[in-house]
Amino acid sequence: MVPVAAVASPRLAGEEGVVVIDVLRATSTAVTALANGCAGIVPVASPAEARREAARMASHQPLLAGERGGRKIKGFDLGNSPLEFRPEIVKGRVIVFCTTNGTKALLRARRARRVLLAALLNLGAVVQRICREDRDWLLFCAGNEGRVSLEDFACAGLLVRGVLAAGFRAELGDGARAAMAASPSGVSITVGSHGDFLRRLGLGADVEFCLQRDLYPIVPVYQGGWVVKGD
Amino acid sequence: MVPVAAVASPRLAGEEGVVVIDVLRATSTAVTALANGCAGIVPVASPAEARREAARMASHQPLLAGERGGRKIKGFDLGNSPLEFRPEIVKGRVIVFCTTNGTKALLRARRARRVLLAALLNLGAVVQRICREDRDWLLFCAGNEGRVSLEDFACAGLLVRGVLAAGFRAELGDGARAAMAASPSGVSITVGSHGDFLRRLGLGADVEFCLQRDLYPIVPVYQGGWVVKGD
Repeated sequence: MVPVAAVASPRLAGEEGVVVIDVLRATSTAVTALANGCAGIVPVASPAEARREAARMASHQPLLAGERGGRKIKGFDLGNSPLEFRPEIVKGRVIVFCTTNGTKALLRARRARRVLLAALLNLGAVVQRICREDRDWLLFCAGNEGRVSLEDFACAGLLVRGVLAAGFRAELGDGARAAMAASPSGVSITVGSHGDFLRRLGLGADVEFCLQRDLYPIVPVYQGGWVVKGD
Repeated sequence: MVPVAAVASPRLAGEEGVVVIDVLRATSTAVTALANGCAGIVPVASPAEARREAARMASHQPLLAGERGGRKIKGFDLGNSPLEFRPEIVKGRVIVFCTTNGTKALLRARRARRVLLAALLNLGAVVQRICREDRDWLLFCAGNEGRVSLEDFACAGLLVRGVLAAGFRAELGDGARAAMAASPSGVSITVGSHGDFLRRLGLGADVEFCLQRDLYPIVPVYQGGWVVKGD
């Protein structure tokens, strides 16, 4: 028996701002890539679309990155491990990015007025960015195949705690209140079943890396089809 | 600013069992109607479909029930207030039922092997029912227009706590762990923004009614298009 609580699909169109969270691993990887000098990331929905998109922008010599089932997609340059996105690999490069949950969440959010990418790696920077912009924000947990992921929900809760601690006037929605109640007030984050899955795949180092807080003071912004380092 | 955590849409097809939770108010209302002798409930997606369905089964003289924006749909016999579904109204009657979130969640779950309806009103009975059937259970919080509702999430957490307290062997998914962490270990449940909305509509008595625990020892089952009292 595996009881799993889930909620229906959020309406995203017309939201003022959306913060997409996929701690394991898409938003952690995107943050790392941009911190390491990547010029921009194009999220796509499928490996086939990634190949078409890469062909379309062949003159930019894009890197193909992404996973299916946690593993690098066949023929791609990179998987979805933030540890692969080192400066010597990604600096100045364009990346076409396809993951099971994270890039799908980004694509669902694309019609929002503003879309930010959050992970534990850039938590503090996102808190500051949210506080700078007085608008409705939806914290969108990418989850795992349509189910909430414990680490995403905890990250959302920590964002809410951070925003409140910064003295920002915030009217909290039910999800924000639930995430805050479920998130640890202390330092440690518990990863959920997807973290266990990655460890079984031998990707425990990724999990440990993604659990670090505030390694990078950057906030990726998704606009016009591109994820770039925001101001 | 209204930060709201949300999660993507759960995959429902192929689930072994789904427990649909809409504390305010659809599952509370369905539980009450069946406890008061209603013969069966047909969930439908829209007021137009409700009218067509009612016409199709005219010989059964069905009652039309449901809400839009929290209020009774024009021309319907009943709204979505459990207090309306009294024995003298619903006994032996068939109800065609259309609500904004709850009946939609039921329709999304209809392909599951087993679909139960849970509310605080029948919490203990649902816990016992889950423990009787060794299968994967998805606790599906109907929420409010695609967002998690605090009281549904708390109800899910209490179901998980109940199942564990009953000594049932349970492997918990991330959502179940988050719901348990967010749910109160004590007696009181906090309602979220939809409860506030209903109170503003003058429906505070509904909210108080739905927050009662274990008023009815019944478990509605959704099968073959009908919600009926399960064994």
